[in-house]
Amino acid sequence: MQRARGIGKAPRHVPVLAIAGDSAAGKTTLTSGLTEALGPDRLTSVCVDDYHRYDRAERAGLEFTPLHPKCNYIDIMEQHLQLLALGEPILKPVYDHATGMLLRPVHVRPSEFVVVEGLLPLSTKLARACFDVTVYLDPPEEIRRAWKVARDTKKRGYTVDQVHADLLKREPESAAFIRPQRAYADIVVQFAPIAERGESLAGPLSATVLLRPTIAHPDLSDIVDTDNRQAMHLKMLRDEDGKPVDALHIHAYAPRELTRKVEEAIWSRIDTDDPVPECLGRIEPGKRSEPLAIIQLILLYHLLMATQH
Amino acid sequence: MQRARGIGKAPRHVPVLAIAGDSAAGKTTLTSGLTEALGPDRLTSVCVDDYHRYDRAERAGLEFTPLHPKCNYIDIMEQHLQLLALGEPILKPVYDHATGMLLRPVHVRPSEFVVVEGLLPLSTKLARACFDVTVYLDPPEEIRRAWKVARDTKKRGYTVDQVHADLLKREPESAAFIRPQRAYADIVVQFAPIAERGESLAGPLSATVLLRPTIAHPDLSDIVDTDNRQAMHLKMLRDEDGKPVDALHIHAYAPRELTRKVEEAIWSRIDTDDPVPECLGRIEPGKRSEPLAIIQLILLYHLLMATQH
Repeated sequence: MQRARGIGKAPRHVPVLAIAGDSAAGKTTLTSGLTEALGPDRLTSVCVDDYHRYDRAERAGLEFTPLHPKCNYIDIMEQHLQLLALGEPILKPVYDHATGMLLRPVHVRPSEFVVVEGLLPLSTKLARACFDVTVYLDPPEEIRRAWKVARDTKKRGYTVDQVHADLLKREPESAAFIRPQRAYADIVVQFAPIAERGESLAGPLSATVLLRPTIAHPDLSDIVDTDNRQAMHLKMLRDEDGKPVDALHIHAYAPRELTRKVEEAIWSRIDTDDPVPECLGRIEPGKRSEPLAIIQLILLYHLLMATQH
Repeated sequence: MQRARGIGKAPRHVPVLAIAGDSAAGKTTLTSGLTEALGPDRLTSVCVDDYHRYDRAERAGLEFTPLHPKCNYIDIMEQHLQLLALGEPILKPVYDHATGMLLRPVHVRPSEFVVVEGLLPLSTKLARACFDVTVYLDPPEEIRRAWKVARDTKKRGYTVDQVHADLLKREPESAAFIRPQRAYADIVVQFAPIAERGESLAGPLSATVLLRPTIAHPDLSDIVDTDNRQAMHLKMLRDEDGKPVDALHIHAYAPRELTRKVEEAIWSRIDTDDPVPECLGRIEPGKRSEPLAIIQLILLYHLLMATQH
């Protein structure tokens, strides 16, 4: 018997970034900037919310929501993540969010890098073993609900009441299966207004980025200095679980010239001749977030550095 | 990185039998007796003709037929065969022969044994490395065409002319991709009338079974003796490629009491308390073939012996 990677082929290690978070936590927005920066030829994007065991009609008779591991082929998700990390192709299942139907699968061949995003990528030890960098998106529930209402009414044809009912129904499974994944992330991202600066939900959001000592982050101590304190600052604090962690605060109203300096400093740590990608930080056409751009840059740093190990 | 079989799990070896052959060569008939004998709980059946890259509408604009490897996800077929042989589940693609559509995939967990049948299971070295026993069904083209016309007009809604046109279109790819697999089979099965006995296409067919020295076949030398020469005989001959091979001839009109003796003798070589399965040899309800029963018994022998290595 030959191994899954085939006869005579050396195993290839593909750097894999995983982005976990609840519905409408901002996974797609974060991912799309990375895809645009590297190009789809270099970064293969895989959504693990397609590993549904049941279609919408079948789920109607069941007592759990798509957040429940039982509602998903977690064994196949694990298997596919391993194959991608080893550079092997997969035949990925496809779930159509518009119709709630399971469609014909698609052939996915991992390119230079892989980004995996979804509800449950960090839910098992075997899945986590496939990733080089893991991110958990952790907006305050109030903000996530607002984002979900906006998206599901605009893009998925639901009414506000339907979205609220869905959130209520999903809450126990969010608590049981989604939020515990926060503990397994190397980076926890929280977009939220900073009250003491008078920021509100209506305006652009600042971000707090927890950089856990589980992987080697770019050394920010000499990048984040008193000169650019207006843009961001770094401090050590205790995480929810009491463990020490570096917290990077990036302010919503950081002036572009300051964030650009910070971006260039982070970028210079990567061995590349390319300039800092211009597409980072885009929330929607014409709307930019400096905190988002810096977070995306840190993730690009990790992906690019993973090839140099 | 963990291997595809997961953390801490010992690899399990699942005996896999592969049955290759052209369209309507008798793969399903041969397989179904094995499934009935062992039961679907013990024998997992996988058809590798579901690994279509294109649905029927997409194929209409292409210059090759489903027989062409380019028309199939051969890389995924190889991967899934390896996973099954290691006891791992797969999410198998599904092609609907009635509509020509690719449907949602199905979760398949290999049970105690696996039988793989289809057009191209022996087409690559990596696929062949996954099998314990390989069979090629090699009826004379005249017989296969008659079987295909009968099946496709009765069960798939085609006219006789459509089936003939299809056979003509597929012939170059049959020659290029299907028939070369005969060289890689441990067992080659040919159902055909024996002219010197006055048999015709209309009656029950005798069978010639080439037992190649690539695997350890049951020793038939003392089973097939002068007492049951009327039922079957064994002789050494040269194969198409000039290599020596054992050829077992099983006669269509072999009396049941003689074939039963032969079956019991083969079965006694297997370490089992179960009686010889009664369901073997069924072509269709009420129609039985003694040669088919003995071939199925030899295949069961190989599957059951593979667990004893």
